[in-house]
Amino acid sequence: MKPGAVVETINLYPLQGIPLIRSGDNLSTIIIESVHSNKFQWSDGDILEIAQKIVSKSEGRLVNLKQIQPSKRSIELASKIEKDPRLVELILSESKKVIRFKKGLIVVQNHQGVILANAGIDHSNVEQDDEKEQVLLLPKNPDGSAEKIHKSLLARTGFNLGVIINDSIGRAWRNGTVGTAIGVAGLPAILDLKGREDLFGNPLLVSEQAIADELSSAASLIQGQADEALPVVLIKGFKTLLDNIPASGLIRDIKKDLFL
Amino acid sequence: MKPGAVVETINLYPLQGIPLIRSGDNLSTIIIESVHSNKFQWSDGDILEIAQKIVSKSEGRLVNLKQIQPSKRSIELASKIEKDPRLVELILSESKKVIRFKKGLIVVQNHQGVILANAGIDHSNVEQDDEKEQVLLLPKNPDGSAEKIHKSLLARTGFNLGVIINDSIGRAWRNGTVGTAIGVAGLPAILDLKGREDLFGNPLLVSEQAIADELSSAASLIQGQADEALPVVLIKGFKTLLDNIPASGLIRDIKKDLFL
Repeated sequence: MKPGAVVETINLYPLQGIPLIRSGDNLSTIIIESVHSNKFQWSDGDILEIAQKIVSKSEGRLVNLKQIQPSKRSIELASKIEKDPRLVELILSESKKVIRFKKGLIVVQNHQGVILANAGIDHSNVEQDDEKEQVLLLPKNPDGSAEKIHKSLLARTGFNLGVIINDSIGRAWRNGTVGTAIGVAGLPAILDLKGREDLFGNPLLVSEQAIADELSSAASLIQGQADEALPVVLIKGFKTLLDNIPASGLIRDIKKDLFL
Repeated sequence: MKPGAVVETINLYPLQGIPLIRSGDNLSTIIIESVHSNKFQWSDGDILEIAQKIVSKSEGRLVNLKQIQPSKRSIELASKIEKDPRLVELILSESKKVIRFKKGLIVVQNHQGVILANAGIDHSNVEQDDEKEQVLLLPKNPDGSAEKIHKSLLARTGFNLGVIINDSIGRAWRNGTVGTAIGVAGLPAILDLKGREDLFGNPLLVSEQAIADELSSAASLIQGQADEALPVVLIKGFKTLLDNIPASGLIRDIKKDLFL
């Protein structure tokens, strides 16, 4: 009995040929065209993993630092950590709480509750002007962005597809980033396995599996972080049977966090 | 240019029909037989994700709590958190540091440096006696276990295969567990992408990708945590070109950890 998910073989396909995305581009249209040109067939329960950067670009979240006027607080923090005060201003404006900082780096809790370095603001894979002062912010509401793409794909293809927006995020205690879900629609971000039985018929006591993060890590193996140009991954073979839980369901209440 | 990894489509295949593993079983033999009976073909660079539980069982890491005599320290901690003092004794013996504790739960740093709940000691999917007092410890040296399986597979099949031992581990700040690498051989656990170029030819500044954790999360989608009985996943299509880095390369020096 598998109330959570049905799994046999899982296949991850890169969508080749996704163009550079600009503000205002319709990602659903681009994804549908790419699935056709890659000769894939939709099935209900297929999952699309979409790199945060192209969602942000389509939503016009590119900012030129020249336009930013840093506050006194940003200037002070910037001088402590030797970072551009305009970038610090942007990081703070995207955050509800500063967790830690050191030279060059601020770990924050962003407005969605995600803990991450520099509020996820990044220069890489962002078109640059001569001074290289363009940066890209995360989508304003990644669960909302995923929901919008999910609904548009359902309306236009007739298929009920999972949509996950992922980013490469650092962790406590472990080196390296892993692909992590910041927006989820059309599938549960997390499975509660409590009451399921193990191989020997004993009920599982506590067991929640963060499947949207696991799917995001899997897709990240294809997306890469350099010049791969593969921001969208189609995942077939992992079908969840439960209702939608957005990525906000992955955020732990900081006051309850025993791992801190 | 992809010095790190070559990726097209990634396929994850469950090895159906792996028997219940007992102490002394030879996992290489069982995996080779299962790959044959599942009619898969080996290729160099294929990766085997092996659930920690079957490695532990093959290594005789099953312990009956009846055999454990708790120390004074364990009895004291156990009474604070309302946990079996014999289990607390085992958790402490598997750990170099207690990070936090609360009712029913101890977060520790184990002897390999991994931060995890209850030192990874678990009742689920463990054969039980009448009193249900059997628990399973993690392998004593998971990188060594992975290396042993990697070498044995190379000697017996002639193929150079990546071997990852994974477990479902909780994280700071986020709900749910994700598949995480605790032992790695035959591939780099982490890719250093520094100096790689982005889409626009700009060099990446800091970028380490914890690919063994990402692969482990992907495999966990098939392995599950309940009665799936699919402890081994064969991953095809993700070939790393760099030298081996064991899972110890994923452990961050706690003193350098800004995320804490």
